[in-house]
Amino acid sequence: MNKAEKLIGELKGLNFSKMYNEDFLLTWEKSDDEIAATFKVADILRNLRENNISPRIFDSGLAVSLFRDNSTRTRFSFASAANMLGLEVQDLDEGKSQIAHGETVRETANMISFMADIIGIRDDMYIGKGNTYMREVSQAVREGNKDGVLEQRPTLVNLQCDIDHPTQSMSDMLHIINTYGGVENLKGKKIAMTWAYSPSYGKPLSVPQGVIGLMTRFGMDVVLAHPEGYEVMPEVEAVASKNAKATGGSFEKTNDMAKAFKDADIVYPKSWAPFAAMEKRTNLYGDGDFDGIKALEKDLLAQNANHKDWECTEKLMKSTVDGKALYMHCLPADITGVSCKEGEVEATVFDRYRVPLYKEASYKPYIIAAMIALSKVKDPVAYFENLLKNQPKRFLG
Amino acid sequence: MNKAEKLIGELKGLNFSKMYNEDFLLTWEKSDDEIAATFKVADILRNLRENNISPRIFDSGLAVSLFRDNSTRTRFSFASAANMLGLEVQDLDEGKSQIAHGETVRETANMISFMADIIGIRDDMYIGKGNTYMREVSQAVREGNKDGVLEQRPTLVNLQCDIDHPTQSMSDMLHIINTYGGVENLKGKKIAMTWAYSPSYGKPLSVPQGVIGLMTRFGMDVVLAHPEGYEVMPEVEAVASKNAKATGGSFEKTNDMAKAFKDADIVYPKSWAPFAAMEKRTNLYGDGDFDGIKALEKDLLAQNANHKDWECTEKLMKSTVDGKALYMHCLPADITGVSCKEGEVEATVFDRYRVPLYKEASYKPYIIAAMIALSKVKDPVAYFENLLKNQPKRFLG
Amino acid sequence: MNKAEKLIGELKGLNFSKMYNEDFLLTWEKSDDEIAATFKVADILRNLRENNISPRIFDSGLAVSLFRDNSTRTRFSFASAANMLGLEVQDLDEGKSQIAHGETVRETANMISFMADIIGIRDDMYIGKGNTYMREVSQAVREGNKDGVLEQRPTLVNLQCDIDHPTQSMSDMLHIINTYGGVENLKGKKIAMTWAYSPSYGKPLSVPQGVIGLMTRFGMDVVLAHPEGYEVMPEVEAVASKNAKATGGSFEKTNDMAKAFKDADIVYPKSWAPFAAMEKRTNLYGDGDFDGIKALEKDLLAQNANHKDWECTEKLMKSTVDGKALYMHCLPADITGVSCKEGEVEATVFDRYRVPLYKEASYKPYIIAAMIALSKVKDPVAYFENLLKNQPKRFLG
Repeated sequence: MNKAEKLIGELKGLNFSKMYNEDFLLTWEKSDDEIAATFKVADILRNLRENNISPRIFDSGLAVSLFRDNSTRTRFSFASAANMLGLEVQDLDEGKSQIAHGETVRETANMISFMADIIGIRDDMYIGKGNTYMREVSQAVREGNKDGVLEQRPTLVNLQCDIDHPTQSMSDMLHIINTYGGVENLKGKKIAMTWAYSPSYGKPLSVPQGVIGLMTRFGMDVVLAHPEGYEVMPEVEAVASKNAKATGGSFEKTNDMAKAFKDADIVYPKSWAPFAAMEKRTNLYGDGDFDGIKALEKDLLAQNANHKDWECTEKLMKSTVDGKALYMHCLPADITGVSCKEGEVEATVFDRYRVPLYKEASYKPYIIAAMIALSKVKDPVAYFENLLKNQPKRFLG
Repeated sequence: MNKAEKLIGELKGLNFSKMYNEDFLLTWEKSDDEIAATFKVADILRNLRENNISPRIFDSGLAVSLFRDNSTRTRFSFASAANMLGLEVQDLDEGKSQIAHGETVRETANMISFMADIIGIRDDMYIGKGNTYMREVSQAVREGNKDGVLEQRPTLVNLQCDIDHPTQSMSDMLHIINTYGGVENLKGKKIAMTWAYSPSYGKPLSVPQGVIGLMTRFGMDVVLAHPEGYEVMPEVEAVASKNAKATGGSFEKTNDMAKAFKDADIVYPKSWAPFAAMEKRTNLYGDGDFDGIKALEKDLLAQNANHKDWECTEKLMKSTVDGKALYMHCLPADITGVSCKEGEVEATVFDRYRVPLYKEASYKPYIIAAMIALSKVKDPVAYFENLLKNQPKRFLG
Repeated sequence: MNKAEKLIGELKGLNFSKMYNEDFLLTWEKSDDEIAATFKVADILRNLRENNISPRIFDSGLAVSLFRDNSTRTRFSFASAANMLGLEVQDLDEGKSQIAHGETVRETANMISFMADIIGIRDDMYIGKGNTYMREVSQAVREGNKDGVLEQRPTLVNLQCDIDHPTQSMSDMLHIINTYGGVENLKGKKIAMTWAYSPSYGKPLSVPQGVIGLMTRFGMDVVLAHPEGYEVMPEVEAVASKNAKATGGSFEKTNDMAKAFKDADIVYPKSWAPFAAMEKRTNLYGDGDFDGIKALEKDLLAQNANHKDWECTEKLMKSTVDGKALYMHCLPADITGVSCKEGEVEATVFDRYRVPLYKEASYKPYIIAAMIALSKVKDPVAYFENLLKNQPKRFLG
């Protein structure tokens, strides 16, 4: 039990009191201590579970999930986190049109929250909409609580929006931290977040944006690489630059994949759609212009096809530090010759990193549970110390 | 904890022993004491939860939900109630045709009930069918229990049928009681249950029927107002008349909305379909006459359109007591200029009552939980006293 | 509590240590003691629940269900078993194409298993695929656990595959054992597993195969009867023959339904598709030959229609022992004049056995729970003795 005690000790030194009763919507709205506390709590929860101590925080209660598009992985991660803490997931399955905006959001948010402790939302499809929608829901339930409609204030976890994907980037980062044996070993490490070719179209920007918005906070040299025309949101690039300046790292952009890979310690090659095209698509959806959407999709696929050479190959991997950069991906990847003819990564590269990739994914339930715990438990240190003392079992047999 | 103790004390004076191991299908099958006990237990459960005492009754067990049509609100209320008491919801998702009648009902009811403590059914679409179906299911599981197939007898909660909507009317009534500071303050109060125009068609009759069947039991003056041709089931009107006579109140009908609103303390303007038309539609469905159904829908929409002046306006609201009648609705409402061009209520009226409307809705999970608790716990007074003594926590952090 | 103590005592004498941390995929992969232990534990769990002792093994955790086709009954049985032991069901709802084979299976299996203690799979549609798929998933999560991706190894329960249907055949067998007052009374009893006509097509072979693969292990005379062309998998027939030889019973085949019923103690008349046709269909699906599939279906329905005389009639029942053979079915049955014009069984026969049939079905949640418990609890005897000592309540009210 030494590891959990050590982690709790480290948690004590951090200032994260403002996370109590608050949402987790964008990593750059959280202080460095708050980010660090989230990692610590995720590690503590994992350690407790591995030692068969139940980290249950609730005897009953609901974790409402509101997914605008399908997601097996995120859904299972959210359900796992909720279950581990004692909450039952209840899915809201209204059509997209029904939970639209304004007063309707306010009403629905209250109607589903009478017993809700947590609301997890995934809404990454439309630029300018997803994160805004989360804030509307948050505002609605805060007022509902103030007005005496809701006994508790359900806090929100952003399970992916148009701007950020905090549960993904935080899991990715925790994987990096644990791979390198601690955040103190990351100064000067080079990480390449690069675009890669995929035959599918319109993959969300939240992953690259989340990565540059978070990974620039640890003194690393972060390079964002993509073909011309695949720019991410300028607001997030500004966040990345500011972060890098503040922490003694760097944030650079390039249109050259090889340059990004050269001497990289970590590479994250992944397809995404151009920001401007996604904005256009959002407007076309708003106008109900389905012919326009079809035409745009065709154009984008053709545009993608110009960049089939953006692939994570063995040759590129050889150019990284010792030829052994840590290869990362949020999964599922488009693997050349396996899941598609030409894709993001060569099969032999992917295969070599399969176990680390699965481990990377395995942090997500704990990151989500940490976000929930930190927004719900007023004194997490005392709570965890109590768990260590009482040792309530997860598996009773 | 004084409030819970007081409520438990009041519960002691009531005779509700027959609710044990029984269904809750129609409010008028329950005695005045049983109705009062349901309100008390709902208030106790709410108070316990607000004071972080877990009212869990089950360590495990299933609450089966059987919804013949979609319903976010009722589904979340049922899930909340079940979760609060320790049951896990399991949805039965068979197509409408599959759980038809007779032996098929008997078989399915048994097959889903091996671990079921509660079955919640919503079946409001067809006149003469919904409540009948619930009684078939109830009969099936009682026999299953008697025959040794089912270890326990799952009891039923009517989550809306063709005749009554007890979880709605009871929530509405508890909202009225708490708004007026007690049932003893309701004598002589005037409540107007009135039809209102909606551009949609075929809204169920269970709300107005549930309201007149229940609200006539408290010495209030209940007025049912609707245009000619929008009659509700005569059997339920008879119940309302009988209730009113027994409790010193009154039950009146009118075809004049203004007359109903005049000097009203409480108004409940809401669209519904004519009973006779719904009966006709049920037969058309039975005959598989889809052309007939389309023709009927068209006729009904045209008929509705003749009564666009049945709207809850500011002007009408001014005619109520102090211009401040309690405005009620089961939600969602058709709000003029917001959710539709012309609807049940003016936007400014609706907006003014938004918080009370949400509070009205917030009683439903507790009403459902009270119905479950009273059917399952043999001595609720002792059980609640025990909870107050032991104070098991809902939130453990 | 004497019965549970007695059963636990009997459990002590059995050698089933290899079931710990293992899957349950085929009954014939389990030793006689392991099969006996499963029955004992199912009976113990039932007895505990009937005496309001909660057999909860987990404080939290997920039971992942992966159903390739719809199933109300099996889904409820799995959910009941999981809930009783403290697990929450999480359904994996990917399309058929998405969870295909090889590395994709490996990845998905890991992604859904971070908190999974159990995975229940139903995949009975394609010959040569279902059981194979289960083994791929099992292999994937074992490796995931070894590689440190998964903290625990989720074990698998076969909820029906192309070869066996162990939760069904074990429930059927436990029903037989309890009907005859113990396994020791079954020697020399004749059981007829016979084909019966159904107007539907393509019913899985897993039930007859599961029955002959299991029922031949108890010294009974097992007869498999079907029209020519309705053969089951030869591998399973070989298992049945081997079993019968080893236990002093017999396994015979006939194309004569009357011969099978003659002097039978137990009859199990049920429709299934010919093995060869199902194999052909699997290949047609593999080739995407939908015209071929349609043609095959038409042929099979025509072939079925040649055997409408394969019906469990009152006349046939009269030829059984005392005219009172135990009639069995996995439900739902095709009942002549009730659920179809001509079917597997006459309505009066079915009606007479309705209660025993429901009891037969009622064993399934306990059988599944027993399979889970035996794969998860290292020392079940000690665990159950502890439960008897501490008497944790299931219903707390």
